[in-house]
Amino acid sequence: MIRISIDAMGGDHGPGVLIPALLTVAQRRTDVRFLVYGREDAVRPELNKYPKLAAVTEFFHCDIAVRMDDKPSQALRHGRWKSSMWKAIEAVKNGEAEACISAGNTGALMAMSKFCLRTMATIDRPAIAAIWPTARGESVVLDVGATIGADAHQLVDFAILGTGMARALFGMERPTVGLLNVGVEEIKGQEEVKEAGRLLREAGKMAMDYHGFVEGDDIGKGTVDVVVTEGFAGNIALKTAEGTARQIGGYLRAAMSRTLMAKIGYLFAKGAFDTLREKMDVRRANGGVFLGLNGIVVKSHGGADAEGFAAAIELGYDMVRNGLLDRIEADLDLFHARHPQATRSSELADEN
Amino acid sequence: MIRISIDAMGGDHGPGVLIPALLTVAQRRTDVRFLVYGREDAVRPELNKYPKLAAVTEFFHCDIAVRMDDKPSQALRHGRWKSSMWKAIEAVKNGEAEACISAGNTGALMAMSKFCLRTMATIDRPAIAAIWPTARGESVVLDVGATIGADAHQLVDFAILGTGMARALFGMERPTVGLLNVGVEEIKGQEEVKEAGRLLREAGKMAMDYHGFVEGDDIGKGTVDVVVTEGFAGNIALKTAEGTARQIGGYLRAAMSRTLMAKIGYLFAKGAFDTLREKMDVRRANGGVFLGLNGIVVKSHGGADAEGFAAAIELGYDMVRNGLLDRIEADLDLFHARHPQATRSSELADEN
Repeated sequence: MIRISIDAMGGDHGPGVLIPALLTVAQRRTDVRFLVYGREDAVRPELNKYPKLAAVTEFFHCDIAVRMDDKPSQALRHGRWKSSMWKAIEAVKNGEAEACISAGNTGALMAMSKFCLRTMATIDRPAIAAIWPTARGESVVLDVGATIGADAHQLVDFAILGTGMARALFGMERPTVGLLNVGVEEIKGQEEVKEAGRLLREAGKMAMDYHGFVEGDDIGKGTVDVVVTEGFAGNIALKTAEGTARQIGGYLRAAMSRTLMAKIGYLFAKGAFDTLREKMDVRRANGGVFLGLNGIVVKSHGGADAEGFAAAIELGYDMVRNGLLDRIEADLDLFHARHPQATRSSELADEN
Repeated sequence: MIRISIDAMGGDHGPGVLIPALLTVAQRRTDVRFLVYGREDAVRPELNKYPKLAAVTEFFHCDIAVRMDDKPSQALRHGRWKSSMWKAIEAVKNGEAEACISAGNTGALMAMSKFCLRTMATIDRPAIAAIWPTARGESVVLDVGATIGADAHQLVDFAILGTGMARALFGMERPTVGLLNVGVEEIKGQEEVKEAGRLLREAGKMAMDYHGFVEGDDIGKGTVDVVVTEGFAGNIALKTAEGTARQIGGYLRAAMSRTLMAKIGYLFAKGAFDTLREKMDVRRANGGVFLGLNGIVVKSHGGADAEGFAAAIELGYDMVRNGLLDRIEADLDLFHARHPQATRSSELADEN
């Protein structure tokens, strides 16, 4: 049995998409149990309509909901110990749940997760990992926005965290790993990326296959299973790709409705367009995974609908099922046993 | 009459795409003259086949060609003073041409351009600007890879340079300008982006309309006419968007050839698909523009075909025709007259 704690008050739709999402997941994953945190009047009446769902769900009333526009510090100030977001995270800390899902605001969720769960012993900073649909399948890309900037040791940590996630999700033993970089040689700066490359190349036997540097267009190609970068470039890359996909979708819709011939063609090819739409559907890859914490937290997109929110819950479920945290801890132990100096320098960095 | 100097030896195809490209441009821009630099045996025989083109072209033999895999320092060492790339740039410096086009390697072209043309008096660093097709038309995005990292004053310089380019190319008086950033509040780092935002907000009357921060998905939306960022994130964004467009193009081709119905639909909608392909055609937006130098240099994509190379030449032509450098210098003078402290601090930075 896998228990998932859920912040019912996050996201643009609040509890509106929650119940259909839980119904979907409960149908597809029969050994799941939900711990749902939110306002009684908003959640309970809907939940009670579905006795089968209510039977696998425990509901906990929380007065406070973190708002989508709360700054992380505000959220911590008025939501710590008592908000639905905090309570859902705390359930993971207390061992009442194995993973926490929230569609609430990213900054607040990360701040609370760090405060409540703490980072793993040898990890300086958590990262947010995205699942990126590629021409070859799916890749893990991190950090897509937990923090800006990363030194070489933090990039190596991200590589290990992302490897663990790829191993748990894609069922591969040795994912390939690339460091995101720009192509021009001898360019100044980004010494930390070069240094991280050196560390990974020299790391010896690990659960990953270090590929080298990759560029922006390698992400969509699926050149590697895990793409590692710091949070500023990673966030820009993710949002730029989303924007480009939407832009092309707009072109396509406009082109297919412009002439009668195009409209007829669209009708014939509708099945193909449906397949394409499914391929481009961001809901299927919904969910930013917080890695490097003592617990699994998944951030669902704020605007996700029921299918998207269900995908985020199932992402958390699958990572628990496949032993994500154990894999990461084993990989970290392996790396640090071989590189005691990396441990030391990361601990020093932590003290700054 | 506008004179364009051309490095005939750059790019993956060398002179093979050059002559068709020149033919295309000479047909569409009747007051253009070409100064072509390259190896006699590679260029002259082709050129002589087209007397009309030969009549508007001056050819100069150069023994040395910069290789696509030369590092910038190597290229400078063995190609300075004598390579076709150097000679084409030097023609701009000597006033023999108004713009230089090369499909040669970016790092070498930038290093030689900086060495030969020097940066404008109040500009620390040049930037590479890309023309980005958006849902609303086109935007200028810079820096897409000249240098990594930028302080607040350099970002403000980029904003002024990009504004000049948008004014010259899009015929607008006051382009809107946005600083690329990530959405999460209170995130640490990127102080330089915040500081640049403050400087632009307080800059008073300028030829731009400062919009504020934009995120990755705003680029494709066309939220602003000019998107400003440092070269690492800019390069990653550009290549990620290119990769995403190619990836979706692949999905589309696969979807349209999978079933008979889809194939029939494709035939009906072929006109619409052609329009779409044209919209997604990266050749139309080919050409990275080097801004901040005392002269116009356009980098064509190394793999560009004749139509793509022609687009890069016409980009250079159009910027000369519309007085790019004069506009930029007027904008810089206006800014620095109002902000003498910005001039001072940028000059100090230059000495570091």
